[in-house]
Amino acid sequence: MRTKSTKTKNIVKLIKPSIRELSAYSIDETPCRIKLDAMENPFPPPRQVSREIGNAASEALINRYPDPSARELKKAVSALWGMDPNLMMLGNGSDELIQAIILAFGGPVLIPAPTFAMYEITSRALSQSVVTVPLGKDLSLDADKMLKKANEVQARIIFLACPNNPTGNRFSDVAVRKILSKAAAAVVIDEAYFDFSRKTYLPELRKFPNMIILRTLSKIGFAGLRVGILAASSLIIEEMNKIRLPYNINTLSQAAAVAALKRKDIVKRQISLLISEREKLYNALVKMQGITPYPSETNFILFRTATDATHVYTKLKQAGILIKNLDKPGHLENCLRVTVGKPEENLEFLDELNKIVTD
Amino acid sequence: MRTKSTKTKNIVKLIKPSIRELSAYSIDETPCRIKLDAMENPFPPPRQVSREIGNAASEALINRYPDPSARELKKAVSALWGMDPNLMMLGNGSDELIQAIILAFGGPVLIPAPTFAMYEITSRALSQSVVTVPLGKDLSLDADKMLKKANEVQARIIFLACPNNPTGNRFSDVAVRKILSKAAAAVVIDEAYFDFSRKTYLPELRKFPNMIILRTLSKIGFAGLRVGILAASSLIIEEMNKIRLPYNINTLSQAAAVAALKRKDIVKRQISLLISEREKLYNALVKMQGITPYPSETNFILFRTATDATHVYTKLKQAGILIKNLDKPGHLENCLRVTVGKPEENLEFLDELNKIVTD
Repeated sequence: MRTKSTKTKNIVKLIKPSIRELSAYSIDETPCRIKLDAMENPFPPPRQVSREIGNAASEALINRYPDPSARELKKAVSALWGMDPNLMMLGNGSDELIQAIILAFGGPVLIPAPTFAMYEITSRALSQSVVTVPLGKDLSLDADKMLKKANEVQARIIFLACPNNPTGNRFSDVAVRKILSKAAAAVVIDEAYFDFSRKTYLPELRKFPNMIILRTLSKIGFAGLRVGILAASSLIIEEMNKIRLPYNINTLSQAAAVAALKRKDIVKRQISLLISEREKLYNALVKMQGITPYPSETNFILFRTATDATHVYTKLKQAGILIKNLDKPGHLENCLRVTVGKPEENLEFLDELNKIVTD
Repeated sequence: MRTKSTKTKNIVKLIKPSIRELSAYSIDETPCRIKLDAMENPFPPPRQVSREIGNAASEALINRYPDPSARELKKAVSALWGMDPNLMMLGNGSDELIQAIILAFGGPVLIPAPTFAMYEITSRALSQSVVTVPLGKDLSLDADKMLKKANEVQARIIFLACPNNPTGNRFSDVAVRKILSKAAAAVVIDEAYFDFSRKTYLPELRKFPNMIILRTLSKIGFAGLRVGILAASSLIIEEMNKIRLPYNINTLSQAAAVAALKRKDIVKRQISLLISEREKLYNALVKMQGITPYPSETNFILFRTATDATHVYTKLKQAGILIKNLDKPGHLENCLRVTVGKPEENLEFLDELNKIVTD
């Protein structure tokens, strides 16, 4: 018995201390009637598309390894967004691309706060240091503060989500360009919500050789497929491909995404509807007593409650509506985030929220 | 112009030197009639199974994120191999699990040589040092040499592929147990070819708390799905889950693997057929002039040619048959590796090889 418990302790000691001190990433898996927590597109593929996906899956030679270069999928992504397939790397979701960037460049990693949680979580899991610069009270990015801190800590990577999550705003173009021009670091422009803001730095890859652009299929209807897209100079792509696991995009996700992206018209129609729903939701929240929403260029809205946000969150959950609770001291005190859902889901959310805050 | 090229040079300098000095992993994508290079199961899913996979894919809510815990898939894997679903972590192929192990424990990484190339490639991509101990002339593992070297370099991980790739043999049980008992390192027993050897250390997880077992669905018919399986003590699983990207197994691979593993009987029948084909192939190679095959407990056979192996490889390729060329000075001089294919493919391979060596 003694030997065993000693050995058990020893094996845990072998794990890097930087990993041992982390806590596991937790996902709220509460079953709910209306799921508005994760920036998913609320519409499953229409029957015609899902039939095509089914056909592609049933014909796929899953006994063989996937195409390591995912050629057809790169072509389909190129047709959707106009990116050069040769200046593209695909990941098992943007998550894997964020990981690969940190592995290629190393830390320190500089991020504004608040921003997308995975930049910090992934950096720490890779034992790299993270330095944050708070956004302004109005959630704006201060380029000079960022550059000063980048210089001070010798940052090797700066992540800028444009638009930003969980705040929903897009940083000023002047600030972003200043950082792109002056930082002696790789600057990652995460355009996960591009389709909802329609602003991009993609045409400027040549102008900013230190820029890396991220996109994803997750927000526009295909979160289940896990397809993230990285665009950068050929030099960066070449180096990053050395880190990429050779068969990182499985056969079925490749085939299904190719089939689904053939119907770009459907994707675009859904996005237009979600943008108009976002505006309706925002306007309704503005009018609601004790609720202050922030303007959004994404498929979600951040809002502040005059009363205890966690209470509001819990009441919504009890009513079967799951949103994201961001309430903690600082910028996000009493803040909640709701993903734009189907029209009827948004109405039910508004109705329930109104009941709670007027109770 | 000057500014731009300076900036370009600077960004490459930002990439870690340990990455810059690597060359990219290359995969032979020569089109071929008979593909016997990659240890794939040659049989696509039978019609009944592919129909079920198609149905599952067409019904999948790919607009939502995948189940982060892959509960159903873990249950299906448990039903196949009898592993505890709670002591399991899944990866986007074993590749991702190898990466996660190296991230959790760090290097130096100790491996025998020759062995599966991804242990070294992944370690280097993660900037970790790799130390090798040559196998004996008879491809056997010397436990004492391994332990001595592990101690000398303070190895944190030892990878042992059981059976080994590309050699095809299983290391002596005595040697493996000696390393498991005495090494002050995590010992990864990679059982990728378990189904073809039917020997496992899985029941001994409690006895060896430093043991991590890897399995994969890739060799038994589902390489395209990218599902690797890690089994270890709850302590190791808990720490490793901190590194795992939360949505690393996509929705379609989860659904397809669950559908396919319902027909375990088909999987087992295919494996039995491949084992019997392996024996036929081995016996035929033994009899062939100028060919020395090594005994195999996998779904491939390593063999040595009396004449230039690269010539033999090229001739086979010209005839539309792709195998793996391993020819380089040392243990694998004039060595080739052929994956066991369908009966008719194996016959054609033997026929063509015989023509080449008697030419």
